[in-house]
Order: sequence, then C-alpha cells, then structure tokens
Amino acid sequence: MFDFQIQARCPNTAARVATFSTPHGVLQTPQFMPVGTLGTVKGVTSSQLEETKAEMILANTFHLHLQPGEAIVKEVGGLHEFMSWHKPILTDSGGYQVFSLGKLNKIDDEGVSFQSPRDGRHIELTPEKAIQIQMDLGADVIMAFDQCPPYPATHAEVQSACNRTHDWLHRSVEAHCKEDQALFGIIQGGCFLDLREQSAQLVTKFDLPGIAIGGVSVGEPTKEIHRIVRHLSPLLPLNIPKYLMGIGTIREMAISVANGVDLFDCVLPTRLGRHGTALIRDERWNLRNARFKNDFQPLDKTCTCEACQNYSRAYIHHLIRNDELLGLTLLSLHNLSHLQRFSHAMSVSIRDGCFSEDFAPWQKDSIARHTW
Amino acid sequence: MFDFQIQARCPNTAARVATFSTPHGVLQTPQFMPVGTLGTVKGVTSSQLEETKAEMILANTFHLHLQPGEAIVKEVGGLHEFMSWHKPILTDSGGYQVFSLGKLNKIDDEGVSFQSPRDGRHIELTPEKAIQIQMDLGADVIMAFDQCPPYPATHAEVQSACNRTHDWLHRSVEAHCKEDQALFGIIQGGCFLDLREQSAQLVTKFDLPGIAIGGVSVGEPTKEIHRIVRHLSPLLPLNIPKYLMGIGTIREMAISVANGVDLFDCVLPTRLGRHGTALIRDERWNLRNARFKNDFQPLDKTCTCEACQNYSRAYIHHLIRNDELLGLTLLSLHNLSHLQRFSHAMSVSIRDGCFSEDFAPWQKDSIARHTW
Repeated sequence: MFDFQIQARCPNTAARVATFSTPHGVLQTPQFMPVGTLGTVKGVTSSQLEETKAEMILANTFHLHLQPGEAIVKEVGGLHEFMSWHKPILTDSGGYQVFSLGKLNKIDDEGVSFQSPRDGRHIELTPEKAIQIQMDLGADVIMAFDQCPPYPATHAEVQSACNRTHDWLHRSVEAHCKEDQALFGIIQGGCFLDLREQSAQLVTKFDLPGIAIGGVSVGEPTKEIHRIVRHLSPLLPLNIPKYLMGIGTIREMAISVANGVDLFDCVLPTRLGRHGTALIRDERWNLRNARFKNDFQPLDKTCTCEACQNYSRAYIHHLIRNDELLGLTLLSLHNLSHLQRFSHAMSVSIRDGCFSEDFAPWQKDSIARHTW
Repeated sequence: MFDFQIQARCPNTAARVATFSTPHGVLQTPQFMPVGTLGTVKGVTSSQLEETKAEMILANTFHLHLQPGEAIVKEVGGLHEFMSWHKPILTDSGGYQVFSLGKLNKIDDEGVSFQSPRDGRHIELTPEKAIQIQMDLGADVIMAFDQCPPYPATHAEVQSACNRTHDWLHRSVEAHCKEDQALFGIIQGGCFLDLREQSAQLVTKFDLPGIAIGGVSVGEPTKEIHRIVRHLSPLLPLNIPKYLMGIGTIREMAISVANGVDLFDCVLPTRLGRHGTALIRDERWNLRNARFKNDFQPLDKTCTCEACQNYSRAYIHHLIRNDELLGLTLLSLHNLSHLQRFSHAMSVSIRDGCFSEDFAPWQKDSIARHTW
C-alpha cells in the first residue's frame, strides 16, 4: 500500500512520471486533484467527475467537520461511500481553513479555538483532533495539522508558525493509527527560504509516505511560489510523492512538475466555471461576453470533454447569461477536464523527453505538440 | 411522418398505448415531457436527461423568443442542434406565457402586445408571428397560438377567449408551412363544459395531427381538471395524440390517461427538485427535513435512476442543507425519472389489462404491482 513507483524521468528537468498506490486504486502522477469541499465537487456528479478523468479528489476536513460532521460520514462507512466516489481521496487537515475562514479566538501550542463561520459555535482543533476527524472521514491520504502563516508576515512570525507546525507534525504522527491511510507532512516557511529549508529538513526526517509544500497561494506574488519550489526541489526525497497545496494554474503546475512536484489541488476550475469562465489553453475566457453570442464552435475544438463534444460557445453563453445551472456545470466539467488533460500531456512529454518548465504544448512551434 | 399507431387498448378505460412518429424518432405514449424552458431542462445535461428515459421535451417559445431569440437558434440549425437534444421536441406557442408572465399592453383580435418581463422592451405576438418563431425554432411538434383565460373568469370572458382562440387557430394553420413539423390545435373553454364542448368540436374540424387540452392548471381546483378531461374524452378523435398541457401530477395523469390522453408536460419535477423535494410514489418528501440526516437508504430503493443508484438520503440532505448545486441536480434527475417510470408503468398495465383511474402500482394490494 502507498507504493510510489517512478515510471519515467525527464531528461531535462527534475520532473518524473510515477504511480502512487492507495487503498482505492493506483493513480498516475503528475496529477491534479479537483476540490470537493463538502464532499461534492460543486455542480458535478461522481460519474461526470470520472468522465473528466479525475483520479483523486481533495475534501476539506474543516468544512466536513462543521457539516455534516465526521460522525455521520463514519457511520455510513467513510467519505467514499458517503459521496459515492470510489477512487482515491485526500483530506486536508483544516489548518489552512482555521486561519483563513474561522474567527480565531485563541491559538497556542496546544491548538486553536475559533468560532464556526457557519453558526458561531465554539470549536477547538488540536493535531490529535484533526487526525481523529480525518481517520473518521477515512480518506486514503490525510494531512498533518499545521499553522499556515498569512502573507505578509515577519520572519519571527513565520519561524514561530514553523516551530508549531513541526511540533504539531510530531503529535499528528503520534495520533495517527490507521494503516490503510497515509499521513503526509507539510512544509511551511512562508517566503523565507532559510525557514523553508529548515522545515524541509525537519519534515523529511519523519520518513512519511508523502510530503506537501503548504503555505503558498496565501496572497504572495506568483514569482514567490516559483522561488520556493525551485529552492525546495533539491532538498526533498525523490522516492515519495510531493504535493504543492492549493495550486491549479497551468504555469505554476509546469514549473513545479519540472522541480519534482507530483500532486496539485485547487478550487479554481470549478470556481471559475461557476463564474462563467472557461480555461482555454493558458487563457481564461468569460463566456458572458457578447462575442460568443453567435459563436457555434465548441469551447475548445481539441477537447474531448462532454461540454466540448456536445455544446457550442453560443449555447453556453446563452446559459450563463440566463443564470441557468447547466452553464455552470458544463464550464466546470470543461475546466476540470482541461487540467486533467494538461497533467496527462505533462506525463506524456516527460516520457517523450520534450517536457520543460514553460510547457505549452498547444503552441504551433512546441516540440511537445503531439501531447496535446 | 407523425404517424400515430395505437398498440394496445385498455379493456377497462379509454386508455391506450401508442407510438407517435416524429422526424426525430418514435415516442411511446403515454408520455411525460420534461420542460426545458430556455432550451435547457434546468440543472441536467442532455445525456443525463436521456438517462431519465425522457423521449420528448417541451421548450417555451415565449422565453426563447426573448432570449437568445429564434434567429440564433435557426442559424445553428434549430433547437435540437442548439441544445444538443436529438430526440423529439415540442414548443408551446407562447399564448399561456403572454397572459401569465407578460405585462399586457393590448389584446385584440389581431394579437397581443406586451412588455418583456426581462428588459421591458415592447413585443407583439400574433398567430402568424408565433408560428413563424416556432418554424424557426424547428421543433417536431408546435402549438397554435391561443388565448388562455385566467381562473376565475365569467362565461362571457371565456367565450370571448374561445372565439379568439378559434380564429387564431385558423390563422395558425394558414401560417404554418413546414412539412417536417406537426401543428397541434388547443381546446380552451375554462371550466365551462358547454364552451369546452364547442371548442372541441371546432378544433377537431381542423383535422390536425394532434389536439391539446389547454387552459388547465391556471388556478382552478384539481377536481375541475378531472371534470374537463372526463367530459372531453368521448368528444375527441381516437386516432390522434391528445395532450393535456401543464399537468405532471400522478393522480391527474392517471385520470387523464384513463380518459384517452397521451401526452403531458410540467415544470414540477425540476421545480420541486430545485426546492429540495423528492417525488416518492404519490408523495412529496422535503429532503431538508432533519429526519434524513442519518438515513443512509436511497431516496427510493425501487428506483433505478442515477440519484437512487449512487447516493443516500443523508447525502442529498447534506447537499440541500448546504445549498450545493449537486443536490438540485440529483433531485431533478430522480423526479424526472419518477414520472417516466410512472408513464411506463401505465403503458405496461394498459397492455396487461390492469390499469385504472386510481392507478397506484406501488401499493401492496395493487393488481398492477408488477408494473412498478
């Protein structure tokens, strides 16, 4: 279980193609995980999600703890059963959400207490409790409880969050006792490379089946993400999956894969879909725009998703303009499929020796054009 | 084209099982048509709609004229192409909506003018224009332009609406010149049986490929619908399809089928779905109710729809409580499937000689139990 097998290495970069075994099946990396916050990838059924070629999804511990509560999910036999998704699932630890969504009351070395953004009730989370909730939810991969510092923050503040994250990782590992579930540690350190380095060394020592880079996409400039990923790349072990949390943009995915990252998650494809936006190559198109009114082409004629195979831009424009639910579903399906397609194209190009940091296989002069 | 073949007759009632041929395929009657007002059955893709076993859908001329306009639909090759539904479609004439949704400015023998509820612009509809729009939309079956009187209304008011409807039927027939499209006439007459009778005689004389009973479900007591359908039953020709407009409740469908009606349409299954309600047998369940919180059974364990095959009441309760789009889609899919299942059960029981007005095959002592 949780066997990570590298199938091919990129001759030009640190990218690799691998398989990662979980109790709910083997997934291919590089892999993008759609986000099903409350146990549903918004607007999409499980079978539609499978058709986007998603192999693993992420669900949020923080949200599921608040609603419906892990007791109900456990009672029915876990999250796979509850949401009818029988492929791999990863849950985050709630750390990120506690700091971004909760009204914090107290934070100390023991844990955090906050008011629920849903109904105001008082909630406490500790590493032990976050792990217990995740054991009850029953995902294939779970995350250690961490403190995610905001951006900007001082070196001292980030250092303190790192220390706490490392202490909490220790307690997370101690609390975790479910063999058919892998626990990943999280590297923090904000935009301070010395702290990132420290954190990487410490987390690596735990010899866990996977490591995540957390604390990105919290408001810092995109270039900082590149800098962090490039700096961490040579410091992390090669033989386990590496997961960059909260990232789902084409450019950042390619740069990260080139630096040895294997897994990604992001709400972007469904959130953009619900706002009427389609991901086309590395562009974003607003389907509300009047230029699509008489445009009877598919969103992307090279895409094989359900939306592109059956519907026109003009029809989706019509749906979005009239607030029809189907418009949101079709754009979400396309956007999810687009990131799966991009991940798959990266895999093929790594195998074929034509992958690079600026991977853009749709470009006419790309040497990786056959992968698109 | 538009061949109507009776396959079996009920030994006990005026019900029949038939096939109705259209340019986009043959459908079985009795048949329930889901409503795709703006060229989309709300929240459901074409392929999901097919999985509910829908064979024909209704789209609204009034709404499609306002948005996106028939010109765009015609440009892409018609409604089937526009919305990617390649089975039969029926469009209504807009008559009902003009009187229920538009802010009427003027109504006379020529036609009606009203303000768009969408953007306030001034719109005129005449029988000729309603038919032209429907020819442009390109449905398999279209409806004559009618005046639908409100409830209550005086005998004189309904008489006047009938006269105009008959005059407009004449003009609709004159204006219609599309051979691969059937035009159905509409019987009006409100709750006055003498006017219903007059209208039936007049509309029948046009020798059209189908006849509809309109002007029901406008606020009258349900018993009035039964009375109208029963009274009209012996007056209408046997050899063409009969369509009761705007009805989609189990009890009214069974009584109408027992009186020779073949086709139905209603927004109910999708509208109820969007409000968190499931159709179970002849009941309505509010999935928001706390009693479903820990109920891990399918909505209806005897139902084969995607929602019932994959998800629990507890999960759908969770989705509805959290305003998740998937909840609306799953309930809509179930409700649509439920009415298809009911229609199919009526067909089987008509063939098997066990159909009756109070058809309720889910009851333990029903002689038609095998049809459910």
